[in-house]
Amino acid sequence: MPGVHSLRWLNTARRVRPYLGGMKALVYNGPGLKSLEDRPMPALQAPGDAIVRILKTTICGTDLHILKGDVPTCTPGRILGHEGVGVVESVGAGVTAFHPGDHVLISCISSCGKCEYCRRGMYSHCATGGWILGNTIDGTQAEYVRIPHADTSLYPVPPGADEEALVMLSDILPTGFECGVLNGKVAPGSTVAIVGAGPIGLATLLTAQFYSPAQIILIDLDDARLEVARRFGATHTVNSSDGRAAEAVLALTSGRGVDVSIEAVGIPATFVLCQDIVAPGGIIANIGVHGHPAELHLERLWSHNIAITTRLVDTVSTPMLLKTVQSHQVDPARLITHRFKLDDVLQAYDTFAHAAETHALKVIIEA
Amino acid sequence: MPGVHSLRWLNTARRVRPYLGGMKALVYNGPGLKSLEDRPMPALQAPGDAIVRILKTTICGTDLHILKGDVPTCTPGRILGHEGVGVVESVGAGVTAFHPGDHVLISCISSCGKCEYCRRGMYSHCATGGWILGNTIDGTQAEYVRIPHADTSLYPVPPGADEEALVMLSDILPTGFECGVLNGKVAPGSTVAIVGAGPIGLATLLTAQFYSPAQIILIDLDDARLEVARRFGATHTVNSSDGRAAEAVLALTSGRGVDVSIEAVGIPATFVLCQDIVAPGGIIANIGVHGHPAELHLERLWSHNIAITTRLVDTVSTPMLLKTVQSHQVDPARLITHRFKLDDVLQAYDTFAHAAETHALKVIIEA
Amino acid sequence: MPGVHSLRWLNTARRVRPYLGGMKALVYNGPGLKSLEDRPMPALQAPGDAIVRILKTTICGTDLHILKGDVPTCTPGRILGHEGVGVVESVGAGVTAFHPGDHVLISCISSCGKCEYCRRGMYSHCATGGWILGNTIDGTQAEYVRIPHADTSLYPVPPGADEEALVMLSDILPTGFECGVLNGKVAPGSTVAIVGAGPIGLATLLTAQFYSPAQIILIDLDDARLEVARRFGATHTVNSSDGRAAEAVLALTSGRGVDVSIEAVGIPATFVLCQDIVAPGGIIANIGVHGHPAELHLERLWSHNIAITTRLVDTVSTPMLLKTVQSHQVDPARLITHRFKLDDVLQAYDTFAHAAETHALKVIIEA
Amino acid sequence: MPGVHSLRWLNTARRVRPYLGGMKALVYNGPGLKSLEDRPMPALQAPGDAIVRILKTTICGTDLHILKGDVPTCTPGRILGHEGVGVVESVGAGVTAFHPGDHVLISCISSCGKCEYCRRGMYSHCATGGWILGNTIDGTQAEYVRIPHADTSLYPVPPGADEEALVMLSDILPTGFECGVLNGKVAPGSTVAIVGAGPIGLATLLTAQFYSPAQIILIDLDDARLEVARRFGATHTVNSSDGRAAEAVLALTSGRGVDVSIEAVGIPATFVLCQDIVAPGGIIANIGVHGHPAELHLERLWSHNIAITTRLVDTVSTPMLLKTVQSHQVDPARLITHRFKLDDVLQAYDTFAHAAETHALKVIIEA
Repeated sequence: MPGVHSLRWLNTARRVRPYLGGMKALVYNGPGLKSLEDRPMPALQAPGDAIVRILKTTICGTDLHILKGDVPTCTPGRILGHEGVGVVESVGAGVTAFHPGDHVLISCISSCGKCEYCRRGMYSHCATGGWILGNTIDGTQAEYVRIPHADTSLYPVPPGADEEALVMLSDILPTGFECGVLNGKVAPGSTVAIVGAGPIGLATLLTAQFYSPAQIILIDLDDARLEVARRFGATHTVNSSDGRAAEAVLALTSGRGVDVSIEAVGIPATFVLCQDIVAPGGIIANIGVHGHPAELHLERLWSHNIAITTRLVDTVSTPMLLKTVQSHQVDPARLITHRFKLDDVLQAYDTFAHAAETHALKVIIEA
Repeated sequence: MPGVHSLRWLNTARRVRPYLGGMKALVYNGPGLKSLEDRPMPALQAPGDAIVRILKTTICGTDLHILKGDVPTCTPGRILGHEGVGVVESVGAGVTAFHPGDHVLISCISSCGKCEYCRRGMYSHCATGGWILGNTIDGTQAEYVRIPHADTSLYPVPPGADEEALVMLSDILPTGFECGVLNGKVAPGSTVAIVGAGPIGLATLLTAQFYSPAQIILIDLDDARLEVARRFGATHTVNSSDGRAAEAVLALTSGRGVDVSIEAVGIPATFVLCQDIVAPGGIIANIGVHGHPAELHLERLWSHNIAITTRLVDTVSTPMLLKTVQSHQVDPARLITHRFKLDDVLQAYDTFAHAAETHALKVIIEA
Repeated sequence: MPGVHSLRWLNTARRVRPYLGGMKALVYNGPGLKSLEDRPMPALQAPGDAIVRILKTTICGTDLHILKGDVPTCTPGRILGHEGVGVVESVGAGVTAFHPGDHVLISCISSCGKCEYCRRGMYSHCATGGWILGNTIDGTQAEYVRIPHADTSLYPVPPGADEEALVMLSDILPTGFECGVLNGKVAPGSTVAIVGAGPIGLATLLTAQFYSPAQIILIDLDDARLEVARRFGATHTVNSSDGRAAEAVLALTSGRGVDVSIEAVGIPATFVLCQDIVAPGGIIANIGVHGHPAELHLERLWSHNIAITTRLVDTVSTPMLLKTVQSHQVDPARLITHRFKLDDVLQAYDTFAHAAETHALKVIIEA
Repeated sequence: MPGVHSLRWLNTARRVRPYLGGMKALVYNGPGLKSLEDRPMPALQAPGDAIVRILKTTICGTDLHILKGDVPTCTPGRILGHEGVGVVESVGAGVTAFHPGDHVLISCISSCGKCEYCRRGMYSHCATGGWILGNTIDGTQAEYVRIPHADTSLYPVPPGADEEALVMLSDILPTGFECGVLNGKVAPGSTVAIVGAGPIGLATLLTAQFYSPAQIILIDLDDARLEVARRFGATHTVNSSDGRAAEAVLALTSGRGVDVSIEAVGIPATFVLCQDIVAPGGIIANIGVHGHPAELHLERLWSHNIAITTRLVDTVSTPMLLKTVQSHQVDPARLITHRFKLDDVLQAYDTFAHAAETHALKVIIEA
């Protein structure tokens, strides 16, 4: 890995700008349509903006949703991507925390730091930010990106950090941690079930271990992912393809169910499963992006002293996560399975989209 | 009222036991069937038991549910009632906190104080207790009642207390406070909506004011109840009979919705209304007893950073509520609209069951 | 009061600038020395700055400390004052939340909203802010003031608000609320003692009532202040001049002591008194500005399950307090006893400094 | 270890009572005086009592304090000891959770489960319990012990548990966890300093790791103990014998100090050190048993947003700790350095009292 690192820095230093005033970018052109295109370089638009040269980015499951046409706020012509690590190229007059040349982690959530929601730590509901990158404004799957509210939406990369690993802190690690682990109040000695062993479920598994629960049960249809889950620290795994996952979880918990039941899929059936396995006094922490209503069994749960939480990641935990990575409490690089150059981003998409065959978790794209 | 009090004590002192070894009790005899019957006096069965002579009891909406046949755990022959204030008649060998002659408040929840749930403050899930009075064992709508786990299920009536008012602390006040106000995290300056202005909703309204919210909006179909709500401290009321309650609440909150949305009815429609009016970052606190599943609009709420809580009252807040009553922070006697003798308990049921006409909230029955 | 308000607005509209490019200001000229002087108008220095024309300001006990020479960070030549309400005159390029003409509440704490402390809600420790106004930069006892980090250090005055009352939200009300009430975890039914019935102690008393404690005991040497405390909602008062305050508090609490013991004086003796009256499981919340160490009786308290908290106000609760004022949960105008014009600011200082004779709490200075 | 276990069970089964109606016990006979004596077997005195035959017990630093005459509540003639694992021999009529033959963990704190303090989780302040074993009633350094409030003061030993390791859960592990780790709010990525690397400090170190802090700095005068600390997971150690420990801690934390500063010694100097190294916003969690007041530097700390907590262990976390031991999140047996028979208990005391030479942490005494 040290060799790889020095090579990367060498490349950076020798870098020749490929197009005069232009750059390569992965562009969404409507449902089912994407291409690697030449696009104009982004420019500063507001005093709080920064332009960041991307070093590494990645693809999120949400990008696939956009490509299916499921995200109406994202219109054709948009550069995708909301994750990445890069180097500050230029900053607006109002930016005080960053300077050109700073290596930075880009948060998937833009936060003004001023509005009522930002002050309450709900950056995802920022009045002028939230999830806008690669959604309502151009994103990070490009050579350069404009970052609004840079002071409160970028984080300095600590000296000596593994920058590739930090790409996992743009979205997936805080998502699993905030929406799953923190909302679920995972505690020492507690029992946890995570429904869904995809990248988000596995990021939840990694960060749940910060709190030393007694059991972490991963539930999925795919034995390969469950095998990964065991390597990542799951104490038990359940393949739910026989429709008897709830029974299996109850058997593992002396019939009581789990203290924390985390939904990391986003469909009604898995949300109902979470209701079937949560113990009285427990929490169902929803991470999944849902497209449909789900049935809530209040006729049973009304008296069970449970809580159900929902959340879009706020990335308010990013400083804490940076400290845990730097002190080796967690190694997010374990989520990275493939690496591509930006020129091969279409192949990266293919690999990521066919995870069942490729066993891809997160793919790194080097810009 | 002083005159009434002295009279009551006089009666108590002169009391002649009406039947040799027997007592009057309101008995559930199957769906739609109840009667005032002669029943044997209860006897101590375990070292932790106490026998309490009832001074005052009341009727709960749950009693009406039992009479409809909706509560299968309650079988014919059961004496109903889980609320009341009385005098300890005798105690088992293991009881140390109470002695014959002590005036006591009876909790609707029996708690052993020893099991894992009791230690976590979840008395409603006590392994050998919970809601058993007037459900799986004989209850308080009688001259005498056996109270299991007496040390941890009775509370001493403070000297000089209004005992009639304290009947409201057996169930209704802690229910509104714990399931609605505490679970909902009502806070100074916050906005609160309570769906349902029946006795439970009004008890929630009274105790929500402990935390000085900026707005408390009561929603109901009955203008008479909304009028009571305004007298009890609601800042706004909404009659939902036009099906536009959500619009009205949004208008009252600058389009944002409320921080705390409390369900105090128990049907799917009102639970959905709570979802329609909760602001991002808010809480839906369910109090209602539900007989059917409800639709949860995860397709909208998944990203709204909300929490939904359920709970059967634990009565863990009874000591705190006793202090607030004694210091006049709340006057639960405001919930009492009618008074009956135990001989007239059938009339009391009629009055309570036809609240729309009688405007009954809580009816006191003097044993 | 409406007449006064309309007059103020009229004045504002007709206002003629008194000096070309200059303004009146109260200047600290070294220990014991202050004067009303002509000073140059402040100018924008950074993109995040705003210039605010002061409508109303006030004097804080801290200003008297500065005049005694007790605050070495404040050097001669400094315009004093860190409280006030005004109108935005101009803003820097980076300010987005405020515009000229906006009526604003000035926080005594300047907060960048970006640094680690600001993100944790510890604005008082802001890397480039904190308490700087009237301390390390010129303050509000002047016709105009420069406010750094304006977007996160000013708050919009709600339409129709009593602007004079809002001056209490610059410092004194959040100080009592955050350092005393929130840190002390005042709760319904709890018992609270506040040592010191000066303006800060009384602001604590007003905001403690948000949480409906059963007892609030005010302790002071001055019977006049204790009389004010009773009017402001104290359930009991204790004059501590006989040295037996601890006994009196124990007598009022059945020998147990209080759940929350709030120090609002700032000397070792009152901090020790707080230790003498706190019940096991209780909290000592320090508000006072201390110049000397105090003895902590760990030989007794080590096993008492207590917490001691310290804090410089962060003004993180200002949005919440604004809501409570607007909804009439608290009326901070009750703290205002005298009113002066800026031309008479020296007289205002005299009145405030001799509170024992003048019974001054907070004095309003109209600029 | 399996061989050892089977041997122990064999011994138990074959056990012949050594004295008719009598037993061996370690008795405190006044300052400096202790002896192994024949004492009458304990008998049930109240319905809630249990008699427990001791399998394993240990010696606590508090026992040494008693022997110095520092604990006036403990009078000559007292059998010492408040830790241990044993077998229930007999129970009173009111005991429902345990039966003869049950293997049990004895809590150092007796809790009635009924009084106000017990209901608040403050078992150490139980009106009829608290720390009474080996203090105001006879203790566990004997063949048999009477346990009051058995249902809420004993815990079932899980099947297959390492009973010797569980002796650490009677006192030392919950003490470090509750008074240090929980009160200190140790969190992922945080920085922690523990002053004192004796058994309590090391138990704190073991349980602090439940929460994945970034740094745990152990401070002590003894290099041997610091070496143990490193083996137990300390990220850094500081020998404070040069009087420059505060400088060293600040150097390790970029000059900021630690988020959590835990006092595990009990003298004024170490408590002052904790004040010198705590960062703004941090917590000082006191575990040490103090005999003297300490100076609290309010002249510096008043504005630092810190909290200081004190606590006698409540053992309210015992169920959680049992789960963490059973799921191998922590191995408390690491604290055990020596093993003795009860006949050799005086030698055990010698070994424990001269820890600097013997490197003893916890010594197991087999009854």
